[in-house]
Amino acid sequence: MMTFGVVGYGYWGPNVVRNLRDLETTRAVALCDTNPSALRRAKQLHPDIRVTSDYSDLLSAPDIDAIAVITPVWTHFELAKKALLSGKHVFVEKPFTATAAQGEELIDLAASRNLQIMVDHTFLFTGSVRMIRKLVEGDTLGKLYYYDSTRVNLGLFQHDVDVLWDLAPHDLSIVDYLIGKPPEGIVATGERHLNGLTDVAFMTLYFPDRIVAHVNVNWLSPVKVRMTLIGGEKKMLVWNDLEADEKVKVYDKGVTLSGGAGVRDLLVGYRSGDMWAPKIERTEALRAELAYFVECIQDNRAPINDGLAGLRVVRMLEAAEESLRRKGEAVYA
Amino acid sequence: MMTFGVVGYGYWGPNVVRNLRDLETTRAVALCDTNPSALRRAKQLHPDIRVTSDYSDLLSAPDIDAIAVITPVWTHFELAKKALLSGKHVFVEKPFTATAAQGEELIDLAASRNLQIMVDHTFLFTGSVRMIRKLVEGDTLGKLYYYDSTRVNLGLFQHDVDVLWDLAPHDLSIVDYLIGKPPEGIVATGERHLNGLTDVAFMTLYFPDRIVAHVNVNWLSPVKVRMTLIGGEKKMLVWNDLEADEKVKVYDKGVTLSGGAGVRDLLVGYRSGDMWAPKIERTEALRAELAYFVECIQDNRAPINDGLAGLRVVRMLEAAEESLRRKGEAVYA
Amino acid sequence: MMTFGVVGYGYWGPNVVRNLRDLETTRAVALCDTNPSALRRAKQLHPDIRVTSDYSDLLSAPDIDAIAVITPVWTHFELAKKALLSGKHVFVEKPFTATAAQGEELIDLAASRNLQIMVDHTFLFTGSVRMIRKLVEGDTLGKLYYYDSTRVNLGLFQHDVDVLWDLAPHDLSIVDYLIGKPPEGIVATGERHLNGLTDVAFMTLYFPDRIVAHVNVNWLSPVKVRMTLIGGEKKMLVWNDLEADEKVKVYDKGVTLSGGAGVRDLLVGYRSGDMWAPKIERTEALRAELAYFVECIQDNRAPINDGLAGLRVVRMLEAAEESLRRKGEAVYA
Amino acid sequence: MMTFGVVGYGYWGPNVVRNLRDLETTRAVALCDTNPSALRRAKQLHPDIRVTSDYSDLLSAPDIDAIAVITPVWTHFELAKKALLSGKHVFVEKPFTATAAQGEELIDLAASRNLQIMVDHTFLFTGSVRMIRKLVEGDTLGKLYYYDSTRVNLGLFQHDVDVLWDLAPHDLSIVDYLIGKPPEGIVATGERHLNGLTDVAFMTLYFPDRIVAHVNVNWLSPVKVRMTLIGGEKKMLVWNDLEADEKVKVYDKGVTLSGGAGVRDLLVGYRSGDMWAPKIERTEALRAELAYFVECIQDNRAPINDGLAGLRVVRMLEAAEESLRRKGEAVYA
Repeated sequence: MMTFGVVGYGYWGPNVVRNLRDLETTRAVALCDTNPSALRRAKQLHPDIRVTSDYSDLLSAPDIDAIAVITPVWTHFELAKKALLSGKHVFVEKPFTATAAQGEELIDLAASRNLQIMVDHTFLFTGSVRMIRKLVEGDTLGKLYYYDSTRVNLGLFQHDVDVLWDLAPHDLSIVDYLIGKPPEGIVATGERHLNGLTDVAFMTLYFPDRIVAHVNVNWLSPVKVRMTLIGGEKKMLVWNDLEADEKVKVYDKGVTLSGGAGVRDLLVGYRSGDMWAPKIERTEALRAELAYFVECIQDNRAPINDGLAGLRVVRMLEAAEESLRRKGEAVYA
Repeated sequence: MMTFGVVGYGYWGPNVVRNLRDLETTRAVALCDTNPSALRRAKQLHPDIRVTSDYSDLLSAPDIDAIAVITPVWTHFELAKKALLSGKHVFVEKPFTATAAQGEELIDLAASRNLQIMVDHTFLFTGSVRMIRKLVEGDTLGKLYYYDSTRVNLGLFQHDVDVLWDLAPHDLSIVDYLIGKPPEGIVATGERHLNGLTDVAFMTLYFPDRIVAHVNVNWLSPVKVRMTLIGGEKKMLVWNDLEADEKVKVYDKGVTLSGGAGVRDLLVGYRSGDMWAPKIERTEALRAELAYFVECIQDNRAPINDGLAGLRVVRMLEAAEESLRRKGEAVYA
Repeated sequence: MMTFGVVGYGYWGPNVVRNLRDLETTRAVALCDTNPSALRRAKQLHPDIRVTSDYSDLLSAPDIDAIAVITPVWTHFELAKKALLSGKHVFVEKPFTATAAQGEELIDLAASRNLQIMVDHTFLFTGSVRMIRKLVEGDTLGKLYYYDSTRVNLGLFQHDVDVLWDLAPHDLSIVDYLIGKPPEGIVATGERHLNGLTDVAFMTLYFPDRIVAHVNVNWLSPVKVRMTLIGGEKKMLVWNDLEADEKVKVYDKGVTLSGGAGVRDLLVGYRSGDMWAPKIERTEALRAELAYFVECIQDNRAPINDGLAGLRVVRMLEAAEESLRRKGEAVYA
Repeated sequence: MMTFGVVGYGYWGPNVVRNLRDLETTRAVALCDTNPSALRRAKQLHPDIRVTSDYSDLLSAPDIDAIAVITPVWTHFELAKKALLSGKHVFVEKPFTATAAQGEELIDLAASRNLQIMVDHTFLFTGSVRMIRKLVEGDTLGKLYYYDSTRVNLGLFQHDVDVLWDLAPHDLSIVDYLIGKPPEGIVATGERHLNGLTDVAFMTLYFPDRIVAHVNVNWLSPVKVRMTLIGGEKKMLVWNDLEADEKVKVYDKGVTLSGGAGVRDLLVGYRSGDMWAPKIERTEALRAELAYFVECIQDNRAPINDGLAGLRVVRMLEAAEESLRRKGEAVYA
C-alpha cells in the first residue's frame, strides 16, 4: 500500500485521485490546489480526503509516501523538487519539465535520495500501444520504416504551452518507447495564428537506420483525428484511437524489390494479404500506470516511464522548439 | 475544333486520348509511343488513330495543332520544346519539367511563337477543388490559416521520380491556385527505404500572412488516404477525396479570442455550428480541362494552369528537394 | 422542488438517481432495492440517501412526491400501482407495462387521483430526436414515406424480455412521437436461437397515408449499429446515433414523377443536392426528461411521454408478439 | 471456344459483350437490340460485331452456340425459349423469369434438348461471396443463425418490376447458395409511394434449423448501403460491399449459454476476440461467371446457377409478392 498526496485538481487531477482511491495498493489521503472551488468539488466526491491550499501540508505529512504533480508544466520542477527533498516519490504529469536542465536536476536528486520518478506518459499503458509494442518487439512488423501520427482537433488552447508541448509528448513518448534510441535530428515547422502560441505544428524525427517519425499536431482542426500509420518491412499497421473497437489494424502488405544493379532495373513488387485487428485490452491506462508505479517503488526499480524517459521527451520538445524558431533547420543531430 | 497528337500511352495517356476523342471540340488523330504493345492496345480501341514510334511524324503532321506530352518527367522538356519549335501548342503532364530552368525556356519559347502551354494540373478541374476555390474566393472560410494534406498509399513506385515529385504536385498546384502567392520558405523532410528514392516525405510551405501549408506524401502506407484539412478564421473544411459523396464538408466552427493584454488573460472561445456538404459536380476533371485548353487556344489567352503555374510548382519541388537534402533547412525564403 | 424515491438500482437506476440529485428542481431522498450490494454502491456515492429493501418505506414516506420505478418490466405494474395508490406521481422505465391491460389500469388510476405518469422514453429527449421532430413538424422532409431503423449489437441478453421488448420500444416511442397516429397493422418476424427468447426480430408497421416503419433488432450482431433512415417527399435523412458529431444528416435528395397515364409512360427524375448536418444539442436526455416531468407535475399537464404514450408502445409490442407467433400475419389492423 | 449472340444492349448488356470478347474461350459475334442507338454504340466499340434488330438472325446463325438474354424480365421466357428451340445454350439475366411456371417450362425444354441454362446470379462469383461460402462450408462460422442484408439506395426505379424483383434476387441467390435448402416460409412487407410499384420492401425467410434470413430493399434511401450481417454459433461476419478493401470482416465473437434448467437460471457469456479481414479476390465476377459457363457447357454439367437455381429464386419472389399482398401473411410454408 502506497499513500499519495496529489497537487493539482484541474482537468486531469480528478482522474488521478479517482484511480488512486480505486486501486487496492494505493490511497490518496490529501489534495492541494490553490483554487477553492476545485477543493470543494473534490470534497463532494471524496468527503474523507484532506484538502489544503498550502503545498507544505503535503510535504510535511508523515503518512504520505509519494506526491502526484498534476499542475501546469512550468510548475512541475519546483513542486517535484520540493517533494523529492521531502523524501517523497514523484509522479509528474507530462511533459516532465519545462526545460531539460530542470529534468536533469530532478533525476539527479531522486537518484541521490533513492526515490522514484514516474512521468505520466499514459499512452504507454493503453492496450493499443502495448499491442503495438508487442508487434514491434516480436518482429511482426519487421524492420521499422516510419511512424506517422496525426493528432488534431479544435482546441483546447492552453495558456502556458503551445500545441507542440501540449499534444506532441504523447507521440514522442510512444516513439521513444517503440524505437528505443534517441533521434539523430529533429525538424519542426508550424505557425501561430491566434494568441501568439504555435497552434499548428509538424515534427520530423530522424532516427538511426532510416527510421523516420512524423507528428502532425493542430489545435485548429474542424474534426478530431487520432491516426497513426506505422510501416515496417514485413507488415504495416494503422492505429485509429477514435474507433470504438478495432483500434489497431495490422496489414499483411509490403513492397519488395528485386532485380538489377541500377535503379531503373529494379522490379518493385507489391504484396497484399489479410488484415487483422487483434483484440485490445480495455483496462483504463492511468489505472494500470499507477499500479505499476507502486510496484516499481516497492521493487526499487525504475519504471519504463521514469525521469530519463521524461527527459528524453523534453529534449525532443526543446529541439523542436529551436528548429521551429529557425524555420525548420535540423536540430539535435 | 482542335486536332491533337499524343505522345506517351502508358498509365495516363489512354485517358487523354479517350477524352480528346469524346469531346466535340477536339480530335486525337495520331499517337506516338516507343512501346509497340502500347500502340497495339491503342489501335484496338481506336482503329482509325495513326500510330507511330517516331515522334517526328507528329511534329511534321500539318493537321496537328497541339501535342499532348504524357511521358516520364525527364522527357518533358525535349518533347515539348520540339513541339513548340514545330508550331504546336503543348499540353504537358505534371510535373511540368524536371528543372525550373527547363520550364523557363519552354515558357519563353511559347511566348515568342504565340503558342499556349497547359500543364496537366488535373485536380484544379475537379468539382471538389472548384468548390473549395469558390469558398475561399467568396470569403466563406475567412482569412486562411492552413492547408494540410495527407496523400498516402501503397506504391506505385516510380523509377524516375521520388514520392515528392510524384504525389506532391497535386497539392502544390492546388495550394498555388487557392493562395495565389508564392511561398516565402519551404521545408521538406523524408526518408528513402527501398530503391534509393525518397518514399516518405513531408513538406511545409510558409506563405505570407501566416498561412502555412503541409503536405504528407507516402508510398509505403498500408491504407490509401486522400484527406485535406483547410482552416480559416470563419469556417473550416475537410476534403476527403475517397468519399463517394460528400467529398467536401464545411464546418461552422472556429476559435475566437477576447480579453486582456497578456497571453494569460486571453479568453479562448469555441464556436461549433452546423456542418454542410455542398453538392459537388461529378464531371470528369480531365475532360473539362481539355475543353478549357481548346477555349484558351482559340481565345489566345493563358490558362490558369499555364507554363507559369507549372513553373511555380517545379520551383517548389526543387526547393523541397534541396531542403530535404539539407535535412529540413528552409529554402526559397 | 419535487422529491423522489427510486426503486431499482441496477443498470439504469444509478443514472436516474444521479440526475435527480444534480437537477435544481428535484431531489432523490430514498432508494429501494432488494439487492444489498446495490444499496451499498448507492450509499458510497450518495452517503446521505436513505436506503431500504422494503418498498413500503418509500410509499409511506410523507416527504416523497414521486416514485421512479427502474425495475424489470414484469414488476412495473405492481410497483407503479402501489405508488399511485399512495398518492405519488410515477416515472416508469420503458416499456411501461408487461401488458396493455396493466397500462390501462394504471392510467385510469392516475387520472382518478390526479397524478401524473411519465414513461421513460428517453430518446424523445435527445438532441437528435428533437431535431428530427422539428424537421418533420416544420415540413422540411415533406410527406413522410418511411422510417427504417437498425438497432443491433452483441447482447445484452435479458432474462425476462426478448429482443423486441428490450430494443424495439426505443423506435416505437420515436415513431409514435413523429407520426402521431397509431399503426393500422403490424407484422413481426424473428427467431430464437439460444435461450428460448427471440434474439433476432423484424417489425413492419403500416401507418395511414402509406407511411411504413421498419425496425430491425438483434442481440446477435458482431457490430453495434444504430442507424435510422427516414424518407420524405422533399428531403431524406440518416440518423446515425454512433457518430460522435453529425448524428443527423439531411439530404436534399428526392424522386419526382412526371408524365403519362400508364406506369410505363412515367418519367422518374432524381434530385440530388447538398447535405446538411444541423448542430445537435448535447444535453443529457435523461436530465432534460426528468426536469420536464417536474414541470408537467407542477403545471398539472400530461407529458408527451405519459401513460397513454407508454400504452401505445405496449400495444404495438403485444401486436408484434402475436404476429411473430403467427409467423408474420398482420395484427392490429 | 464458345460463340455467343447477345440480345439486349441496355445497362448490363455492354458488360456482357465486353467480357465475352475479352475471354479467351468465348466470342461475341452478333448483337440484337430494337433500339438503333444501342446498336450504334455497340458498333463504335466493337466495329466487327454483327448487329441486328431481328432476333431470328441470332437464332438462325449456325456459328452461334449460345445466346445471352440481357433484356427486361417479362421478355426472358419468350427469348430464352426460342433460343433453346433453336438449339442454343442460354445465359439469362436475373431474375430468371417472370413466373415460376415459365422457369419450369424452360428447364424442361433445356433438359430435353441437352442444353445448358445459366442464370446471371453474378454475386455468386464475387470474391466476397466465394469467401463467405468458404467460411460457411468450412464451418468457420459454425451453425448459422441468421443472414441480414440491407440493400438500399436512391433509384433506379424500374418500370416493369418493383424493388423486390429488382434488388432482392441478389440476396435470394446468395442465401440459396449458402444455406442449400429451400425456405419453409416467407413473409414480406412494404409500401408503394410513387409509381404504383413497391419501392420499400422487407422480406423474412424462415429456413430449417432456425436459420432466418432478412432482406431490406429500398429505392428511396438517401444513402447507398450494401451491408450484410451473418451470425453463426462460432463466428459472425459483416460484408460491406461498398468498402474498397476489407469487404468481409470476420469477428471472433459469440454468445454462450450455460447453467440451470429454467430460463432465469441460464448464464449468458460473451466472447469477444480478434477481427480478421481475409484478402478477397478482385477478379470481375461476370468474367469468371461466363468462363465457368463455357466450362459447364463443354463438360455437359449443370452450373451452380442453373435454371433450377433461377427457379428457386423466382419462387421466393412469387411467395414474397403474395405475402406482401396479404400484408405479411407467411407464404410458401
